[in-house]
Amino acid sequence: MRFEINKDKLLYHLIVAQKAMSTKTPNPALQGMRLDVLEDHLVITTSNADISIQIKLEDQSLAIESTGSMLIPGKYFIDIIRKLDGQTVTLTQGDDTLLRIEADHSDITLNLLEIEDYPNLVFTEKEHFVKINVRTLKTLIRQTAFATSSIENRPILTGVHVKIDGNRLAAVATDSYRLSQKAIELESDYEPMQAIIPGKSLEELIKILEHNQDHVEVHFDQSRVLFKYRNILFLSRLLEGNYPETSKLIPSDFPVRIKFNKESLLTAIERASLLSNRDSSNAVVKLALRSDDTVEITSNAPEIGRVLEEVYPVDEVEGSPIKIAFSSRYFLEALKVFASSEVTISFTGEVRPFIMTGEYDEDMLQLILPVKTD
Amino acid sequence: MRFEINKDKLLYHLIVAQKAMSTKTPNPALQGMRLDVLEDHLVITTSNADISIQIKLEDQSLAIESTGSMLIPGKYFIDIIRKLDGQTVTLTQGDDTLLRIEADHSDITLNLLEIEDYPNLVFTEKEHFVKINVRTLKTLIRQTAFATSSIENRPILTGVHVKIDGNRLAAVATDSYRLSQKAIELESDYEPMQAIIPGKSLEELIKILEHNQDHVEVHFDQSRVLFKYRNILFLSRLLEGNYPETSKLIPSDFPVRIKFNKESLLTAIERASLLSNRDSSNAVVKLALRSDDTVEITSNAPEIGRVLEEVYPVDEVEGSPIKIAFSSRYFLEALKVFASSEVTISFTGEVRPFIMTGEYDEDMLQLILPVKTD
Repeated sequence: MRFEINKDKLLYHLIVAQKAMSTKTPNPALQGMRLDVLEDHLVITTSNADISIQIKLEDQSLAIESTGSMLIPGKYFIDIIRKLDGQTVTLTQGDDTLLRIEADHSDITLNLLEIEDYPNLVFTEKEHFVKINVRTLKTLIRQTAFATSSIENRPILTGVHVKIDGNRLAAVATDSYRLSQKAIELESDYEPMQAIIPGKSLEELIKILEHNQDHVEVHFDQSRVLFKYRNILFLSRLLEGNYPETSKLIPSDFPVRIKFNKESLLTAIERASLLSNRDSSNAVVKLALRSDDTVEITSNAPEIGRVLEEVYPVDEVEGSPIKIAFSSRYFLEALKVFASSEVTISFTGEVRPFIMTGEYDEDMLQLILPVKTD
Repeated sequence: MRFEINKDKLLYHLIVAQKAMSTKTPNPALQGMRLDVLEDHLVITTSNADISIQIKLEDQSLAIESTGSMLIPGKYFIDIIRKLDGQTVTLTQGDDTLLRIEADHSDITLNLLEIEDYPNLVFTEKEHFVKINVRTLKTLIRQTAFATSSIENRPILTGVHVKIDGNRLAAVATDSYRLSQKAIELESDYEPMQAIIPGKSLEELIKILEHNQDHVEVHFDQSRVLFKYRNILFLSRLLEGNYPETSKLIPSDFPVRIKFNKESLLTAIERASLLSNRDSSNAVVKLALRSDDTVEITSNAPEIGRVLEEVYPVDEVEGSPIKIAFSSRYFLEALKVFASSEVTISFTGEVRPFIMTGEYDEDMLQLILPVKTD
């Protein structure tokens, strides 16, 4: 096997493939990148326990002299390609065990990994797939995946539940203390289906989606989902089991509604969360609607101090005075995903979940469970 | 005590003072910032075991209503000031134990620390001090402090040895495997003196030196050194003991001299250091001058692979073929402090220290001990 290619072109694709490469794994083969050199293109493959990436690399700089397949130690390979001088790199498989990398005045030899140890990955495209605009998909992921659970004892909650019916795709994530749901309209109609996609897979996926005007094809399988974007195939396992019925968690009757300027509310909550015992990410913050319709945000850490913030609602307030306490982290994370500059918070009661909605965030709802305080 | 001040002005100086603040310390008082409010200015003081900072803060935005002194929990104070809305902040000492911070619609109360527990720090300026241009001092520190030892079992080597005689200031640092020395010319003549300044103190000092055209006054004491820069006093302890006589470590006879383009040599050594067992920062790299006057840089990690780089000297080489092995980290750190684009390496023998010099790096010398290999 021998070919030459533009160094930057190769590096760009190796960095994409790196996202599915394991650095710490009991299976050393998964620290490798599989490289298949075919007649007129390369295929780069990486995989860890959860996701796999396959890239078809065609380029006018690519000059293939002979074909072959090999498993390259991924981390070293990327480090080397990144540091090379010169524009062109020549790769030659010396024998079954060695890769020779030549560029400018560098002559580097890497010991290859055993390609027989590499898992057999199948990136099957389906006849029927769902087509989603890149920008829409990225927004959908950013607005939901953060609310998945990071605790493994309820594995099903580490995923985003996706339901498709007709031209509507609905996504829900919850860790049982907060919930995020968002629906989008698809460009065509599809048969009803559902799947639970690991939140972490989706967070890796958005890192490789660059061109907002493009589309992603989503190919669902019984146990896997394949995202096809440009020359990249991104495969993730699905979570098995029944996702909890979340719709009944969401209250429908809201005696109190307050509309806020998102930025003012955000900075007030941020300041209120500063004075917690060195873990400002999980401070308990209180919100109280006073009878003069001003909102008070407070926090109190007896050994450190206390914060009182006054926030003025942007519209007439609906409802009577209420006090509620919550995790500042959950509140801030939910607030930050809104595109609207004004966000409405709707309360059912002091110990009932409350929800956030935004005028320009269609079909999105953020729900947070309050914290009980004395 | 009560005053108001422009928020950004205050924050800027708190961030400078933070550099001498302890975050982890057995003495909780050192997690505080001492604030003295005088008739027409503020004094901010911070200290850890090694360095102390005192800032005199005068500003037209400062409106002092009443004076006083207090010890504020530093981390929380800076976090709060950073996050405040509005331009002006008002600080009021509620009673001996509380500080009230008001800005825009925020009303925050911080519990104060016990000011009696704060050490009594003396920032005495001397009648005779050394004056050094900021840019010159920063360069001097960057070119020497990196070569100090970070291991505490020979504490004296964690410092930079500074000698002044007439209008010449010479600085030396060594961790006994490499050595850096640099001399600068002062604007006036001084009595002979010497001191050993902790390398870490100097690295904190350069972070606060911003304006290259300014000067720093250096006030030496028996056990301490005070740097005066603008409205900032920066105090460091000195190291006690005798610094080793380093001049005899430096060879004077160099049968082999090779001049390199700094950048080509740097990238070749970087590539050669990539293939070490996941610790590329301390790879052993070999340099060999061949009889055709080409220089070969090689490294070999049997389980991973090997690198061969050819580097072409920029001038005629002096001397006959030689092979030498060294730590890539030491080599790269030394090479990077040169301002010259061409660097000469002078060798005495394969197991003798070699030195680096640069045409435009006057009075600077970097020395590295080779590594013995099979």
